Amino acid sequence: MINKIDNFCVNHIRAFGMDVIDKAKSGHPGIVLGAAPIVHTLYTRILNTTSLHPNYYNRDRFILSAGHGSMLLYTVLHLAGFPFSKEDLLSFRQLNSKCAGHPEHNVSLGIETTTGPLGQGIANAVGLAVASKHLQSKYNKKDLNVVDNYIYALCGDGDLQEGVALEAISFAGHNKLDNLIILFDSNDIQLDGATNLTVSEDVKKKFESMNWAYLKVEDGNDCDAIANAILEAKKQTRPVLIEIKTIIGHGSSMAGTSDVHGAPIGLEKTKQLKQNLGISEELFNLPQEVYDFYNEHALNRSEKEYQKWINTLNSYKERYPQEYEEFMHFVNDDFELDIDKLDDFDTNTKEATRDTCGKLLKTIGNLMPNFIGGSADLTKSTKAKGVDGDFSSNNYAGRNINFGVREHAMGAICNAINLYGGFKSFSSGFFVFSDYLKPALRMAALMELPALFIFSHDTVCVGEDGPTHEPIEQFTMLRSIPNFNVIRPCDAVETKAALIHGLQKNKYPTCITTTRQPLQTLSETSVEKALKGAYIVRDYTNFEGIIIASGSEVSLALDVADKLALEGIYVRVVSMPSMFLFEKQSDEYKEEILPRSVEKRLSLEMASTMPWYKYAKNCYGIDRFGISAPLKEIPEYFGFTVENIVKVYKNIK
Amino acid sequence: MINKIDNFCVNHIRAFGMDVIDKAKSGHPGIVLGAAPIVHTLYTRILNTTSLHPNYYNRDRFILSAGHGSMLLYTVLHLAGFPFSKEDLLSFRQLNSKCAGHPEHNVSLGIETTTGPLGQGIANAVGLAVASKHLQSKYNKKDLNVVDNYIYALCGDGDLQEGVALEAISFAGHNKLDNLIILFDSNDIQLDGATNLTVSEDVKKKFESMNWAYLKVEDGNDCDAIANAILEAKKQTRPVLIEIKTIIGHGSSMAGTSDVHGAPIGLEKTKQLKQNLGISEELFNLPQEVYDFYNEHALNRSEKEYQKWINTLNSYKERYPQEYEEFMHFVNDDFELDIDKLDDFDTNTKEATRDTCGKLLKTIGNLMPNFIGGSADLTKSTKAKGVDGDFSSNNYAGRNINFGVREHAMGAICNAINLYGGFKSFSSGFFVFSDYLKPALRMAALMELPALFIFSHDTVCVGEDGPTHEPIEQFTMLRSIPNFNVIRPCDAVETKAALIHGLQKNKYPTCITTTRQPLQTLSETSVEKALKGAYIVRDYTNFEGIIIASGSEVSLALDVADKLALEGIYVRVVSMPSMFLFEKQSDEYKEEILPRSVEKRLSLEMASTMPWYKYAKNCYGIDRFGISAPLKEIPEYFGFTVENIVKVYKNIK
Repeated sequence: MINKIDNFCVNHIRAFGMDVIDKAKSGHPGIVLGAAPIVHTLYTRILNTTSLHPNYYNRDRFILSAGHGSMLLYTVLHLAGFPFSKEDLLSFRQLNSKCAGHPEHNVSLGIETTTGPLGQGIANAVGLAVASKHLQSKYNKKDLNVVDNYIYALCGDGDLQEGVALEAISFAGHNKLDNLIILFDSNDIQLDGATNLTVSEDVKKKFESMNWAYLKVEDGNDCDAIANAILEAKKQTRPVLIEIKTIIGHGSSMAGTSDVHGAPIGLEKTKQLKQNLGISEELFNLPQEVYDFYNEHALNRSEKEYQKWINTLNSYKERYPQEYEEFMHFVNDDFELDIDKLDDFDTNTKEATRDTCGKLLKTIGNLMPNFIGGSADLTKSTKAKGVDGDFSSNNYAGRNINFGVREHAMGAICNAINLYGGFKSFSSGFFVFSDYLKPALRMAALMELPALFIFSHDTVCVGEDGPTHEPIEQFTMLRSIPNFNVIRPCDAVETKAALIHGLQKNKYPTCITTTRQPLQTLSETSVEKALKGAYIVRDYTNFEGIIIASGSEVSLALDVADKLALEGIYVRVVSMPSMFLFEKQSDEYKEEILPRSVEKRLSLEMASTMPWYKYAKNCYGIDRFGISAPLKEIPEYFGFTVENIVKVYKNIK
Repeated sequence: MINKIDNFCVNHIRAFGMDVIDKAKSGHPGIVLGAAPIVHTLYTRILNTTSLHPNYYNRDRFILSAGHGSMLLYTVLHLAGFPFSKEDLLSFRQLNSKCAGHPEHNVSLGIETTTGPLGQGIANAVGLAVASKHLQSKYNKKDLNVVDNYIYALCGDGDLQEGVALEAISFAGHNKLDNLIILFDSNDIQLDGATNLTVSEDVKKKFESMNWAYLKVEDGNDCDAIANAILEAKKQTRPVLIEIKTIIGHGSSMAGTSDVHGAPIGLEKTKQLKQNLGISEELFNLPQEVYDFYNEHALNRSEKEYQKWINTLNSYKERYPQEYEEFMHFVNDDFELDIDKLDDFDTNTKEATRDTCGKLLKTIGNLMPNFIGGSADLTKSTKAKGVDGDFSSNNYAGRNINFGVREHAMGAICNAINLYGGFKSFSSGFFVFSDYLKPALRMAALMELPALFIFSHDTVCVGEDGPTHEPIEQFTMLRSIPNFNVIRPCDAVETKAALIHGLQKNKYPTCITTTRQPLQTLSETSVEKALKGAYIVRDYTNFEGIIIASGSEVSLALDVADKLALEGIYVRVVSMPSMFLFEKQSDEYKEEILPRSVEKRLSLEMASTMPWYKYAKNCYGIDRFGISAPLKEIPEYFGFTVENIVKVYKNIK
């Protein structure tokens, strides 16, 4: 049955959205008209999330995975009291507006994650659900639940076609994430036309096959039915997909067609729409009754839930002071790594940096209760493993996550664990397969998340597995992402530096690459200096040139410099583990390391040379695909030998 | 029932594989031991693919999606008469061996595609099935089928966790690709341990929900059962998954554990294995009986099928001479584009290059019957549409493929359509979402496929949709892939040049990026010159500097040069649509365009500056994320105005 006041609110939200999209001359009307009842129902009846305490830790999380429905979200957040003024709404899609084209992560505005690239939102929701289940398992007590929130996402047909979503859905079902409810805005239309142009699945059967519960709402305008389905979903012991049949562009003359998806419908059709919906034709009209309704049912209702939680928390503090203390570190996001407790490495060490990294991760896991992560079915190879056993439906307290061969979902899930607050997540895989999660890495950078991505097997020294497994252009790919820090350590000391840095509360993600092959710990390296991005590891007064190297090529550069010195040619060697961090240094520091006057420079890295031309005119690297051969033959094959590099350096004109 | 001679062959293939992997000290024993009966059955009873005519057009295609099982494939191909000598096999994973770590595309060796990165092989198989269905629809007659082959792939658990595979599987089911049979080597183990660490699905139900038929073979050692299941699969009117229960590492002491997955089992355990399998302990032993069996059942059997097809083709030639002629262009892969028939553009044109591109694609589609492709649910935006209607189960002759929001599968499917032979495929999407198909783009480059990737909305001039939809680092990402050609046209003329080039039989893929916003057709551009990668579009005797620009920034560069000229500052302008093509030019040509003596250079591109430092010391670009704002405000916001660039140029020290 369609409730009168709900309908009144929903229709004004719809019409308001059309007015703004018309004004902006840009936006997506279809979903605003079609899915308004869903978002309205969520905020007025279901979601425990209050604009007075937007970052309250036990709040429900809502993700608009179909990010193009941003106008719908902004309007509802405005009504629910989040700091969007009506002027903000009217500036939709204008320069520097709070109301960007797609929702941009900002908890104080009520936006839990940035969405737009389809599929990411679903995988993010799965990541939030992982975080919440983990906390439940660790901190809830029989008599007191300090964590009992739900994770909701609204998705469309397109979202469910994306690989990243399909990976995450499979993962969520396996792990029985019963705190996850996905609302499927099922309107049978996508951008290019009817969904049956490209998909014909039994959605119920598909989700059930992956251990999801499936519920259906036949009339997407029926807020009671939507609410009832959600209440039913909460009773399930599995994640739930609620398929809600809606009509894209409901109420407009283009309803049910793809034409209403992505362009303003225009003033005339909006006028007609308002007539069809039986509301006033006034522009930008949100009547007081709508505000009143939201004040009562969104704000006041959820504020009560917030107060309840505060009371619960107070009781918890009394009854479980120790757990309370630890839990509050999550709430306040103030875990600190005691770096003095990290393993030290002396110059007798010779081991693969993946091994060094693995040891450090274990120590870090033991030091920091908020450190959680794992790999995409490559733990044995990357050595990156979480502590406290495997995260699973039998042990949500486990901090090693078996993501399966689902690199892309792994990235998006790890992003979301960071988004949850309090946590520090890590993921790992082979460096070459960073390709598979590139879209998620970009989202981490865009959202300024301090996520940690660990990739092992960082060069052609992968060896026998051959070119499909040998990274070449991946350093270039990742270093060119804005706001993304790549650290390529050259030994155990720099590996430690990388992890120390990666665990800070940076406003950017950090990726650390490690080797398959053993590397000697150098006497020249330093944690402190490494964190400046580049520093001198060999120097001579009156050096005539500079070799800049990273990772496994630093020791080669040192050997080359030593060899050249014997011939009376003096070359400075710079280790540059992170271009990103080096760029953040002062001009003075940069000049000190790479003086402009020294034009004779050679870069050395077993990878695509593209990023190096900024620092050196002569770049020695690998601008072709790798080759399958035993590790020991690879460096010579590609000319990474002392003899050859000495020759290359001498040949610089 | 387990057949004696099959068992004899299979066990020797297993043991031989172990010997070679031990010798190489590298490889994946688990799948060789577990899946040998499957590959053996395929080649000796099912596959119509003959080593005497390896590229016979109607051959069945087999893809080892689980590419780490390469040693199994090489051994069987050797036995089936493909040009792998025993010495070749013994050089497994050594430098320059035919037997690389993972199978590398080479039809004369019987390798249909490069595999290794999981999931790609499944999506490739779907692409081959698309190509074959299309040909069936166009050329088969009631009385004569010139195309009736099947596409097979062998995959493991990991493959089925990958998003790209899940996308492709959904696509295949929708399109009822009944010529596709996937053999699932189901052994419940993956790299990190039991599959139940990370997945618990009802495989049958999942595939059936996506319109696949599902069959199961309980005993993966039973070749008769495997063969019968395949025969049953051929009767289906849908794609078929055959789940074959196997034991990883069968016969070894580590059978059924993940320890046997990825490292040699060693001489001692191999000896034990041979005892367990009841065969001689001799090293590298492939008895004559095995060769004899393969000669009869693999080579002779399939050679007969080949001869049958030749007879069919001859009858076809007589009865349908016209169709025969066109079909033979596929067989011989010798379609040629008549470039004189392409649309011309004069300097009065001002349109978005996505529109120009769309028009040209339509013309090309009409000129070339082998041109097929589409977009990932963005045809309305990218304007890239195939002709002859939509490809679907009602019209396999359609050449517009609705890939759905499945960018990654789109890339891998298009790769495979090219792999089929005779075809030229294209795909399209928003440039920023090239991220989603990066792994497939890399495979195209690695396999030297002339695939064509079209990406529209190539800069922040996407505008209102904001940073999630605005490419920044994508040019860098793609230009750094070895053997990958990126062309960024600056107007209609260069767009035409890009397509002409992209349609050639190059040994590399070509990506063409187009604009959302209109661009003036310039009088300075030229198809011929554009294909040199970079050329002069404004020149002065005694120019003091060079501005190098691409795409929408070329006209800006021209305006800047004109403005500077008014002030007596003379600057050459170079349009550089393709760094890749420019790098292929002679040193003389490069020196002519960018003389070393002219050090004052400025690059201009609305994207990450990283690729430009090779050509210019001063790079003006965008090394941060984009912003949501109306298109007309974007260039100014990022300083891409004549005034600002004039200033930037003058400030160069």
